[in-house]
Amino acid sequence: MAVYQAPLRDMRFILYELFDAESQWADAGDGGLTPDLADAVLGEAAKLCEDVLFPLNRSGDEEGCVLENGAVRTPAGFKEAYAAFAEGGWTGLGCDPAHGGQGLPQLLNMMVLEMVCAANLSFGMYPGLSRGAYDAVYLHGADDLKSRYLPKLADGSWSGTMCLTEPQCGTDLGLVRTRAAPTGDGGFAITGDKIFISAGEHDLTENILHLVLARIDGAPGGTSGLSLFLVPKFLPDADGRPGARNGVTCTALEHKMGIAASATCALRFEDATGFLVGRENSGMRAMFTMMNAARLGVGMQGLGIMEAAYQGAVAYAREREQGRALSGPKAPDRPADPILHHPDLRRMLLTGRAYAEGARALAAWIAAELDAAQRASDPQRRAAAADFVALMTPIAKALFTDLGSEVANLGVQVYGGHGYIREHGMEQYVRDARITQIYEGTNGIQALDLVGRKLPVGAGRLLRGFFHPVNAFIEAHGADPALAPFVKPLAKSFQALQGATAFLAQKGLANPDEAAAAASEYLRLFGLVALAFMWARMARAAAPKAAEGGADGAFYRAKLGTARFYMARLLPQAGALYAAITGGGGSILDFALEDF
Amino acid sequence: MAVYQAPLRDMRFILYELFDAESQWADAGDGGLTPDLADAVLGEAAKLCEDVLFPLNRSGDEEGCVLENGAVRTPAGFKEAYAAFAEGGWTGLGCDPAHGGQGLPQLLNMMVLEMVCAANLSFGMYPGLSRGAYDAVYLHGADDLKSRYLPKLADGSWSGTMCLTEPQCGTDLGLVRTRAAPTGDGGFAITGDKIFISAGEHDLTENILHLVLARIDGAPGGTSGLSLFLVPKFLPDADGRPGARNGVTCTALEHKMGIAASATCALRFEDATGFLVGRENSGMRAMFTMMNAARLGVGMQGLGIMEAAYQGAVAYAREREQGRALSGPKAPDRPADPILHHPDLRRMLLTGRAYAEGARALAAWIAAELDAAQRASDPQRRAAAADFVALMTPIAKALFTDLGSEVANLGVQVYGGHGYIREHGMEQYVRDARITQIYEGTNGIQALDLVGRKLPVGAGRLLRGFFHPVNAFIEAHGADPALAPFVKPLAKSFQALQGATAFLAQKGLANPDEAAAAASEYLRLFGLVALAFMWARMARAAAPKAAEGGADGAFYRAKLGTARFYMARLLPQAGALYAAITGGGGSILDFALEDF
Repeated sequence: MAVYQAPLRDMRFILYELFDAESQWADAGDGGLTPDLADAVLGEAAKLCEDVLFPLNRSGDEEGCVLENGAVRTPAGFKEAYAAFAEGGWTGLGCDPAHGGQGLPQLLNMMVLEMVCAANLSFGMYPGLSRGAYDAVYLHGADDLKSRYLPKLADGSWSGTMCLTEPQCGTDLGLVRTRAAPTGDGGFAITGDKIFISAGEHDLTENILHLVLARIDGAPGGTSGLSLFLVPKFLPDADGRPGARNGVTCTALEHKMGIAASATCALRFEDATGFLVGRENSGMRAMFTMMNAARLGVGMQGLGIMEAAYQGAVAYAREREQGRALSGPKAPDRPADPILHHPDLRRMLLTGRAYAEGARALAAWIAAELDAAQRASDPQRRAAAADFVALMTPIAKALFTDLGSEVANLGVQVYGGHGYIREHGMEQYVRDARITQIYEGTNGIQALDLVGRKLPVGAGRLLRGFFHPVNAFIEAHGADPALAPFVKPLAKSFQALQGATAFLAQKGLANPDEAAAAASEYLRLFGLVALAFMWARMARAAAPKAAEGGADGAFYRAKLGTARFYMARLLPQAGALYAAITGGGGSILDFALEDF
Repeated sequence: MAVYQAPLRDMRFILYELFDAESQWADAGDGGLTPDLADAVLGEAAKLCEDVLFPLNRSGDEEGCVLENGAVRTPAGFKEAYAAFAEGGWTGLGCDPAHGGQGLPQLLNMMVLEMVCAANLSFGMYPGLSRGAYDAVYLHGADDLKSRYLPKLADGSWSGTMCLTEPQCGTDLGLVRTRAAPTGDGGFAITGDKIFISAGEHDLTENILHLVLARIDGAPGGTSGLSLFLVPKFLPDADGRPGARNGVTCTALEHKMGIAASATCALRFEDATGFLVGRENSGMRAMFTMMNAARLGVGMQGLGIMEAAYQGAVAYAREREQGRALSGPKAPDRPADPILHHPDLRRMLLTGRAYAEGARALAAWIAAELDAAQRASDPQRRAAAADFVALMTPIAKALFTDLGSEVANLGVQVYGGHGYIREHGMEQYVRDARITQIYEGTNGIQALDLVGRKLPVGAGRLLRGFFHPVNAFIEAHGADPALAPFVKPLAKSFQALQGATAFLAQKGLANPDEAAAAASEYLRLFGLVALAFMWARMARAAAPKAAEGGADGAFYRAKLGTARFYMARLLPQAGALYAAITGGGGSILDFALEDF
């Protein structure tokens, strides 16, 4: 059966041994935030996730959401769990204290998010969408919108949605048809159909705030004519409490492969009262604020699934007895040896472990830079950090979610036939994980974002935030024989990444289709090198302590062992990706469309 | 929406242009089998699959099977579809004419099987299991068993099962606890619990023949004490009609990730009358007869899923309009261009196409050798063909099913959010495909079979059946500049395979765990090189005709284009696998078990 224990020891390693979270918090003026406090926050989050959210994961999948008379009922236990979640202050963890939030840095937020997603991905959708809505209003909304709505999102009494997709448009938002008619009093009447709206209707909160992309009558076509509106399900009354019902209804729930406990709604807006967020026709900008944060958040979903699937697989591999180890019986008093003794099983487990821990470190690096971009004392530092986040966001989203599905599938494979049975919980990870590769921009779109938008900025300026530290690390530690098993493969794969980057830059200049044809492979190559950098750094941090005794020594030895595995067995993919990329796009671009 | 049209043109290309099916049929004494007749058979199968089985695929998934009072009801339409299937003679297609079968070669059988699995994987399970039961009784049963039961399996009026797995044992059949008590009259009373029994109970046939692995009282422990029994659901009466109910009941249906319309049963045998198949304590041998055929069959399931997912993805990519091509609008009169114009979309489609067509060719090669092993006029040829089949069976099973899941996932990705919605049918392919990597021996077990059992035979004797023809092809065509884009990458990857083989042979001698630690990567490397060989041969067959006009010219040009894509973009994986394998097993074997 699936199990979950929050990886708190690894999180502390990343915060204080791999990165220097304490100094960063001090620099950002987070004076009150100490490792003790941070550990307490993570520990409390772990308890909630293990004891409240995780036990609802299987039952929520079986029960799903139900639409009756326009109202959506979430699965049994979700309402109580959400109340506990909001009561604990988790909805406002990263929100501004001015609105009742706790103002904790992204570095901690992302770790909490990982735990929530590992424990119950469907549940995590509800506060996750609220946080996106919070960010959009916080960064783009007028003061009266902020003061009226943000405290409700921060305390979790109201939730939020992102209403972008319509039947005829997902990726291509320029095709949005939802209209916004000025009502003369500064407001707008919103009319149109939205689909795939997560948390679009549910029974967890007393109100829902829809952030809706729509076109004001007379605005230009395409994306430049889109504006963002806040459309409450219930219009607040004079006391700020939910008042008159607004013109938005849930017309259907989607039947999905997974995340069954997350209500994915079709919403109809009919002359619904909407409030402009940001300026007219600048809806895409505001939407991208939500999207970028959301993309990192989806990356954390992938990471959460990796961790949960890995843990479930390890538990089964210890307990299931089948066959004998090739090198002779290991449990001669039992009818068979635990399958953990089989090298191919351990290959699968180590793959999950290496991806999960590598991704956790990389996610922490990105989150720390996100904090630095917003809070570092030095403006140059802030700018460089923002560049880094812009570069790494599509990589984290696509890589972590692709790996999430891979590791979830390995989890099923470790269970064999029992992995295919719903009761055991492993196949749910595969079904739940699958959407993360799609929403908030498919992973193909992330790759195009990386290659088409991020690489060209300032003649490769964004790349420096990654290339320079990797270079510096290789130069600093290349001569250390103890680190050679880590630095050498890193250097080799980094060379492949640099070569592929130069190849794409040159090819893409002449023909953007050439770069697009290799974008997905390039993103994966970049991501694997980024994980290699994390693993080399983790190995360096762990190596001096690997001789320690007790649980700590075991932790560091496992860290080194996993680093070795990553370098020897997973990183070689980089060479194949380099070969495929530099093979050129001809075989794709020359294939006649009518021949498919 | 998912679509399916049987790939008859490609099948004809493989039969008559890539391989010389006609000569083989003549040599085997299949005098009556001509291309015209074969085409008619494939054409009729295509009709049945497209018109009858495929339309039941989605509804069958939604409805699933229902267990009531020990009886299992298959989804609406399945009973009628099965009746049509049996009536058309499809259950007996490969069965001996002596038992009312049509005696058609495996080469055609496998192509029909691919179509059935592409159209409706769940449906295909029912006749598929019957065929396994037929083979076991045909090859190991006494004459009276054969004459009594085989005609019923061949005409489809009765169906079969394979009852191996028990709660405590799947891979490790030595742990089987089901007992067989001699009843004194030559019969046995079978008692025990079996799980995961496909087609274990259903309403499609008037009787079900369970082939049950059990231990005769007093027999040794482990696999050497297992015997195989035929246990009919209804014992035949004096006229051979279903008579008294035997002591076998369906106690539960499994709730699975997919193949919902396939009844996966828990069966309880209580003093059930069973008839020995083969000799006492030689059950594993008989079971492996079924397993080997079944493994190839499961490989065809993977291929079927690839083809169906590819076709569904192409149809959507043509029709869905989103965004503009990077090289400028292609459908300026439409609001957006079809997504087929995006290179990353075409990369995904070409991946599916290259894997599916490559696998189809490889499957045909194996099936033709299976026929040669049974029917070739020259005994040496028969022996060599049997060697080849033994070598390639685990590769086909694991590679095709891994690729089936990969391509099914690409199909979902092409659909974006719509791929995640059940109604569109694409996510079902992912759920259905997932079991094929597990049953009939997990793909990890296939890899161990290849490395641990097949490679060592006669100091690498089995390998020659693959290595020699590849070598010969490279030598014959290495100097042909027109074929260089195909032969060069093939030669390079073949070198990697030879190097990895030598490495594993040497390492494995010293420590079997070393070979086991690389088995999965080795199998995939082998499989990719085998597909490369098929693609190089297909390119050679297609090249001279690519200048033709009309549909035929387009077919050959697409064949060449797909071959180019395979070599340039997919085959580079071989280099990474070689590096991972020759990196050694240390990082896996040295990781302490308690550190997971």
